[in-house]
Amino acid sequence: MKVSELSRRTGVQVPLIKHYLREGMLPPGRATASNQADYGEEHVHRLRLIRTLIATRGLSTAATKEILEAITAEQDDLHQVFGIVLGVRPAATAAPEAPEAPEADPDAAAPEPAGLADARRLIAEMGWDVSRGNPAAHTLGEVLAALGDLGSDIDWRGLLPYARLADGIADLDVRQMSGDRDLLAQAERAVTVAILLEPAVLALRRLAQESKSAHHFGGHHPEAPHTT
Amino acid sequence: MKVSELSRRTGVQVPLIKHYLREGMLPPGRATASNQADYGEEHVHRLRLIRTLIATRGLSTAATKEILEAITAEQDDLHQVFGIVLGVRPAATAAPEAPEAPEADPDAAAPEPAGLADARRLIAEMGWDVSRGNPAAHTLGEVLAALGDLGSDIDWRGLLPYARLADGIADLDVRQMSGDRDLLAQAERAVTVAILLEPAVLALRRLAQESKSAHHFGGHHPEAPHTT
Repeated sequence: MKVSELSRRTGVQVPLIKHYLREGMLPPGRATASNQADYGEEHVHRLRLIRTLIATRGLSTAATKEILEAITAEQDDLHQVFGIVLGVRPAATAAPEAPEAPEADPDAAAPEPAGLADARRLIAEMGWDVSRGNPAAHTLGEVLAALGDLGSDIDWRGLLPYARLADGIADLDVRQMSGDRDLLAQAERAVTVAILLEPAVLALRRLAQESKSAHHFGGHHPEAPHTT
Repeated sequence: MKVSELSRRTGVQVPLIKHYLREGMLPPGRATASNQADYGEEHVHRLRLIRTLIATRGLSTAATKEILEAITAEQDDLHQVFGIVLGVRPAATAAPEAPEAPEADPDAAAPEPAGLADARRLIAEMGWDVSRGNPAAHTLGEVLAALGDLGSDIDWRGLLPYARLADGIADLDVRQMSGDRDLLAQAERAVTVAILLEPAVLALRRLAQESKSAHHFGGHHPEAPHTT
């Protein structure tokens, strides 16, 4: 199909498609004339993935490009793709030529947040095999530090039941990604599951919270629709 | 303590403390002289809560103010506090004088996203008691629509196992909030659990994902540290 048809099918304007082509985020079409190219279903699909990452998930063009490069370059190694998606390994050092680089002192740049030691205790208690550079450990540390500042009695031990449920979610995630599909489809699916399901997980928790709140705390207003 | 001491204890600059006082986000101190006031531990605590919501969670000052007002005004009704935190009921119409307003046609303003019907199917299947205005249903619908656009075979039924784990997380949340503490502390804790634990839940999933990815997909590079 021509670029105009590709635009019509995906709702992405032609100048933006050309931008993605220039950036290498979209593979070139098959040249049919001196300045014409033919695009296929793989281009429709790739454009939808780009728009999902940018519009639905709010990723930057740069982050999206990095993830797309990972899908293409590392499609035979889901663990590498995953590492880039999780921010554990920067895309630049994740190339097979530099296998030693990723773990090199990732904490040197940023100061350790106050709760990081507790986050590492939780990780150890769960028996999780996590590299020191995983930014999620820092996030967890920040939350634990904030809970402490607020005088909350929720500490890293209090988060263990949450960690067990998160472990169950990650089990589902990994099971979604396995299968006998082709490698590119698997790598893309790893990205979809990891990135696109994040807002879904939070939304499901919020929906369940409203329901449980109605049943546990909704007894104050007998006229309210949610009182049981 | 004087405002300077309050600033020292919390790390919040005096002009910003005065701004929070003017906005009513921080209750006034006890007047000791014509232009002096005495602040207590409750002010230290409230300032830490404000900074956590704004700095750690990235909420706007307006959203933070709304939540703080909910804590103060609705502290005897955790379900109301929760509704405001979840965005189900806007704070303005959540006042007890207007009990009918909250459910009034919440979808009129925004168009229904493509996946919303599927999101409602999932909610019904889970037996969740959720108001039509809960924005999390829209978020879930957007994710389901994006999955469909990408040709993913994950549909609302595929998210049911996730929903069951999210239900377990919400169970933990509600259990954290119950107890015989005073009402203000309970209301504040509802906010902390609902808002501050969101990044923790995502971080725990990402940590578990890296660990599971290492064990399931990490066999490609025998020299990598995470290969089992």
